[in-house]
Amino acid sequence: MKQSQLFGKTLKTVPKDEVSRNAELLIRGGFIDKLMAGAYSHLPLGYRVLNKIKNIIREEMNGIGGQELFMPALQPKALWEETGRWNDPGKAVMFQFKGREDKEYGLGWTHEEVIVDIARKRVSSYKDLPFALYQIQDKFRDEPRAKSGLLRGREFNMKDMYSFHATEEDLLNFYEKSKIAYLNVFKRCGLDALVVEASGGSFSKEFSHEFQAMTPFGEDIIFYCPKRDFAQNKEIAQVKAGDKCPICGEKILEGKAIEVGNIFKLYAKYSASMKLQFTDADGKKKDVIMGCYGIGPSRVMGAIVEVSNDQNGIIWPTDVAPYKIHLITIGDSAAVIEAGEKLYNHLLKKGEEVLFDDRAISPGVKFADSDLIGIPTRLIISEKTLTQESVEFKRRGEAKNELKPLKELYA
Amino acid sequence: MKQSQLFGKTLKTVPKDEVSRNAELLIRGGFIDKLMAGAYSHLPLGYRVLNKIKNIIREEMNGIGGQELFMPALQPKALWEETGRWNDPGKAVMFQFKGREDKEYGLGWTHEEVIVDIARKRVSSYKDLPFALYQIQDKFRDEPRAKSGLLRGREFNMKDMYSFHATEEDLLNFYEKSKIAYLNVFKRCGLDALVVEASGGSFSKEFSHEFQAMTPFGEDIIFYCPKRDFAQNKEIAQVKAGDKCPICGEKILEGKAIEVGNIFKLYAKYSASMKLQFTDADGKKKDVIMGCYGIGPSRVMGAIVEVSNDQNGIIWPTDVAPYKIHLITIGDSAAVIEAGEKLYNHLLKKGEEVLFDDRAISPGVKFADSDLIGIPTRLIISEKTLTQESVEFKRRGEAKNELKPLKELYA
Repeated sequence: MKQSQLFGKTLKTVPKDEVSRNAELLIRGGFIDKLMAGAYSHLPLGYRVLNKIKNIIREEMNGIGGQELFMPALQPKALWEETGRWNDPGKAVMFQFKGREDKEYGLGWTHEEVIVDIARKRVSSYKDLPFALYQIQDKFRDEPRAKSGLLRGREFNMKDMYSFHATEEDLLNFYEKSKIAYLNVFKRCGLDALVVEASGGSFSKEFSHEFQAMTPFGEDIIFYCPKRDFAQNKEIAQVKAGDKCPICGEKILEGKAIEVGNIFKLYAKYSASMKLQFTDADGKKKDVIMGCYGIGPSRVMGAIVEVSNDQNGIIWPTDVAPYKIHLITIGDSAAVIEAGEKLYNHLLKKGEEVLFDDRAISPGVKFADSDLIGIPTRLIISEKTLTQESVEFKRRGEAKNELKPLKELYA
Repeated sequence: MKQSQLFGKTLKTVPKDEVSRNAELLIRGGFIDKLMAGAYSHLPLGYRVLNKIKNIIREEMNGIGGQELFMPALQPKALWEETGRWNDPGKAVMFQFKGREDKEYGLGWTHEEVIVDIARKRVSSYKDLPFALYQIQDKFRDEPRAKSGLLRGREFNMKDMYSFHATEEDLLNFYEKSKIAYLNVFKRCGLDALVVEASGGSFSKEFSHEFQAMTPFGEDIIFYCPKRDFAQNKEIAQVKAGDKCPICGEKILEGKAIEVGNIFKLYAKYSASMKLQFTDADGKKKDVIMGCYGIGPSRVMGAIVEVSNDQNGIIWPTDVAPYKIHLITIGDSAAVIEAGEKLYNHLLKKGEEVLFDDRAISPGVKFADSDLIGIPTRLIISEKTLTQESVEFKRRGEAKNELKPLKELYA
C-alpha cells in the first residue's frame, strides 16, 4: 500500500476525554477513530490489525474442532426471559428497547440464549454430541465507564465459543484443550499471558480461568508464581504476595495485568433453563453439558498496544502488524523515487506486506510517523544509501540500524 | 469437512411463519437458523457461503481503489441530528433507545453520518481527495414487513462504500467504474443482474441506479430492453412494455426482479450539512462531493437461492458454493469406507473444498440431503462403482451422471 493513498493520516491530537495509552496511540497513528466513549471505528490500518488477530483466533479455534457461525446482535426479549437474564442483569448490562408494535429487543452482550436455542432445535441424541461453535462479532454492553480505549467498549469485537457435551468428563477434556489454544493465540499475538484462576460466577463454586497479560498498566491485580504453575485473581485469591506457591513452593508475586480472555464451565446452567436435552445411550433424557470461551479481538488489540510501545509510538509484534515492512524514501531526487518504486514493486511481487511511504514530505515527519505506526521492519532509501547501493535496515524498537545491499533484497 | 462432524443437520420442517423460498431452503439445508422475523443466524455451512460473497465483493471494491474499514453500529443521537435524520425518517427506520444516564443511541441502518464525521477530521485540502472507503457489517432497520427471508431483514449484512471527490466529474468517473465492479460481483455470484434507473431519492431529480436480478419471484417490476442498454424501475418509469427502447429501438419488456445493489450520487448532500469541506487548488473552501454504493451480501445470498433452485433444493453457482465437491459413500462395506476416506484425504491435499458425507445412513437420505444442500459437483463411491475402479460423477442441476475412473482423480 502506498502511504500517499492510505486513508487515515496520523494526527497530532486526540479527543480531550481520551485518557488511555492504547486509544491515544491508535488514534494518533490512524488505526482507529473515536465515534463516542466506548465506540471506535477501525480505519484501514487498524482493521488490518484486527483481522490478523481474528484470523489467529480462527486458526486456533478451528484447530480444536470449533466451527464458525454468525448470530444476530438483535435479539427477542422472550429468549432472555427463559434464563431470567432479561431482568437480571437486564438493563444494567444490556441495551433494551422497543421497535414497531412495541416489540421488545435487546442487543447481544453474550450469546448463550441464542446458541442454546439453535442447539435445541438440532440436538436429540448423544450421537449429536459433542460439538463446539464460535463466532466473531460485535457485542454491546451499556458500560458505566468506557474510558479505557479498546479495553472496555460499549460496542466491542468478541470471539465467543460454546461447547456442548454429553458428559462432564468430555467438557473437562475440551476445556483443557481450549486453554492450550488460548495460550497459542496470545503467544502469536505477542502477549505474555498467564492462566489465572478467577470467580466462576454466581452459579458455581468452581473457578473459571482468565488469561491475563502482565503490564503495569493493567486493571486487574493477580498473585502468581514466577514458574507459572499457579495464579489467582486478587478478587478470589487464597494466597498473597510472599506466600509459597501451593504447587512448587516458589515465592508468590503480585502484579498488574489486563484480562484478554476467559473460559467458563457452564455445566447445565443454560441447557437446564432452556431445555436443551439429549437422549443418552442408556435411553435417559439428560441436560447437555456446556462450556463457554471468550476472547475480545479488539481488546487484545488494545492490550498489545498497552504492553508494546515506547515514547515514540507502537511496537507491533510481527504476526499482528498491519504491514511487515515500512519502506521509506528520503528526498525527492528521481533516482530515489525510482529506486523506491522499483523495490516496492519487487517486494509486492515476492508477496511481502509493505507500506510504502512515497509521500513528498520531510524526512522528520516520515520518521515520526513510522515510529508512531510501529511496523516491525523499516527500509530507508536515500541518495546516501543509493551511493552505497544499499538501503538502511532497522527494526522498530531497536536502536541499531545497518546498511543492507540492494542486491540482497533482489536476490 | 466430514458431514458427520458438521453442525447443522438438515431439517424436514421450517417455522410456520416462514413463507419465502430462500428461507425455506436455507433453513432446511442447515445454512441458516431463524431467530425471529427478520433475524437469522448463519450456521457453519451458510456462513461459508456468506463469506464467499463478501470476499468477491472485497476483491471488486479493492480493485477500484476501495479501502476497507469498520464502523460501529451503535451511534450517538447528536451525529444524526446534524443531518436531520434522527427525526426524519427517525424511528420509522431506525432503532433508537436510551442507555445509562439517558444517553440516546441509534443503530446504524446506513453510515453517511459516521463516515462523514471520520472524513471531516482528516480532509482539509484537495490533495486529500479522492478516496473511497467501505465496510462489510450488520445493519439494522425496523422493517414493518420482514417476511422475505434473507431478502428483507431487521438485521442484515451490508457492504456500504462511500466515495469522496473534489469535483463532480471525478465522482461521475468513479460512479461508472463502480457499475462495472458491481456487475462483476453479481456475475461471479451467478446472478444475471441488470443496471436499472431508479429514484434518486428525495433530494435529487437525477436517477440512482439499482442492480436487479431477474426472477419471477422478484419484488420489483422493471421495464427493460432485451439488449440491456436501458432499464427503469416501474416506480419512475418513463416507458412501458411494448414501447421502443430509447437507445436501440428494441421492444421494451416487463419483468420481475430482486434488487441486489444500488448506487447513489450524493453530491454535497451530507458534506454540506455536516461541514465536510476542503480547500481547493484555487484557495476556495468547497463541499466534498460524495457517492454511496450498497450491496447486501446476505440479500445476495437469498437472491441466489430464489433464482437458482429446483424442487429438490438449492443449486449453488460454483464461486459461492459452500464446498465445491460433495463426496458421498453409499453402503457400509470396509472397501467403500476406505476408498471414501482415501479419496477425501487426497482431494483435501490437492486443496479442493470437499464436504464428505461419511454418515452411516441410507443412500436415499444422503441423496436428498445432497440435492437440498446443492453443492455443484457430486462424487459417489459405492461397491458398484468400485468394481469398475470408478466414482459416479454428477453436476447438481443436471440429470446426466457418468463414471469417472479413480485413477483420473488421483492423476
